[in-house]
Amino acid sequence: MTVEIVTAAVLVIGDEILSGRTKDKNIGYIADYCTAIGVDLKEVRVVSDDEAAIVDAVNALRAKYTYVFTTGGIGPTHDDITADCVAKAFGVPLDFHPEAIAIMKERLAKSGGELNEARMRMTRIPRGAALVANKVSGAPGFWIGNVITMAGIPAVMQAMLDEVAPKLKTGAKLMSESIRADAKEGDVGTELGVVAKEHPDTIIGSYPFLDETMAPNTNIVVRSRDAEKLAAAKAAIEAMLVKVRAQLGAA
Amino acid sequence: MTVEIVTAAVLVIGDEILSGRTKDKNIGYIADYCTAIGVDLKEVRVVSDDEAAIVDAVNALRAKYTYVFTTGGIGPTHDDITADCVAKAFGVPLDFHPEAIAIMKERLAKSGGELNEARMRMTRIPRGAALVANKVSGAPGFWIGNVITMAGIPAVMQAMLDEVAPKLKTGAKLMSESIRADAKEGDVGTELGVVAKEHPDTIIGSYPFLDETMAPNTNIVVRSRDAEKLAAAKAAIEAMLVKVRAQLGAA
Repeated sequence: MTVEIVTAAVLVIGDEILSGRTKDKNIGYIADYCTAIGVDLKEVRVVSDDEAAIVDAVNALRAKYTYVFTTGGIGPTHDDITADCVAKAFGVPLDFHPEAIAIMKERLAKSGGELNEARMRMTRIPRGAALVANKVSGAPGFWIGNVITMAGIPAVMQAMLDEVAPKLKTGAKLMSESIRADAKEGDVGTELGVVAKEHPDTIIGSYPFLDETMAPNTNIVVRSRDAEKLAAAKAAIEAMLVKVRAQLGAA
Repeated sequence: MTVEIVTAAVLVIGDEILSGRTKDKNIGYIADYCTAIGVDLKEVRVVSDDEAAIVDAVNALRAKYTYVFTTGGIGPTHDDITADCVAKAFGVPLDFHPEAIAIMKERLAKSGGELNEARMRMTRIPRGAALVANKVSGAPGFWIGNVITMAGIPAVMQAMLDEVAPKLKTGAKLMSESIRADAKEGDVGTELGVVAKEHPDTIIGSYPFLDETMAPNTNIVVRSRDAEKLAAAKAAIEAMLVKVRAQLGAA
């Protein structure tokens, strides 16, 4: 059985993230979302509002992964240049999009405000792109090739992700099990490495934490696309932990 | 007067960030820190615990920026491969480091625990690197060339950053002023673009938000390394806002 692996990257665009002024909330959200629907998020980049940086990142990432999700830079001001950059990356013109204009007009009829030059910026869409509806604030994102361009404001980005998710190819979900080691990471690391080598179709991660007594403890997470292999690795880790804890207790 | 621009990138290493299991807290912290000390954070990447991905990212980023800060992947388990990858990126061997071993022994004498194979992993340092002290939990980071490798646990990373910060070259600080527009972003965008063009030595960003009455509002942030140019741009924006708000009121 061949299991298709569907991969993705996130490209966060904005000076405000790199200056620290705004703390990104989209990376973790998209990461959880991808895991839930069976898409492997493989890379994230954050770049500034700089044309060359954005174009280079879009082209590098779209060549490597099934999907690229961009966030940020699609508002009405001079520093919102994501649409320009995606168009440039794909070598297509940036057109005023009739449907985007109609959406903006309908919104403005309700909320008040003029369809001025600034707001018209938000109706510029790379030629050939499909619109991604924005049920929160109107101005749409878009989808061209394997690149999905969304807003930076978390509530808007989340609504856009809900719009595109049903249309994404998804792979077999990576299932996971979490095992509390009740031991220090340094005390189980050697043996855990042996288990990891013996279970090559699983991904085993080790994450230290301080438990409720403030003692160093470890969570071990096993992930696999195969339920049987996942269960076998989990059982091997639990057996290893029983052995190691007994040795530590006896020492 | 030539002002030196000191740049940096952050490379976050870890499957747990990309799966969503762990939400990164280091990017925003390092971003604030860089802004405070006069280092321009230009790019962030997050990659998985994969040798090729880490080596490629280290080499791409160290060629482009003054400094590269890596976080994550320097613990005692098989999935901690950052030291291996940085050594490979620099083409140097990874040695057991006598000072790192001494630090680990001293720690373990107090906390209990054996200097086993897993913990010895944490004493492997790329040849030629200087250690970065870890006042929180002992196991050091390191600094080789322009790459500074730190832990992923926020408290440990923060302590390591405090260790290296006094030794970093820093540039002229980017000063900033924030101006509340009391207008919708779409109503000020066109005029703000004109001001931005007239003040090329400043960086002007526009950030929509919902104010205390839940009305759409806008924060405008001006940044510059030159206090006079910053003040001039701020004054120009305030004058523009007075004019635009008067027009909107009259409409």
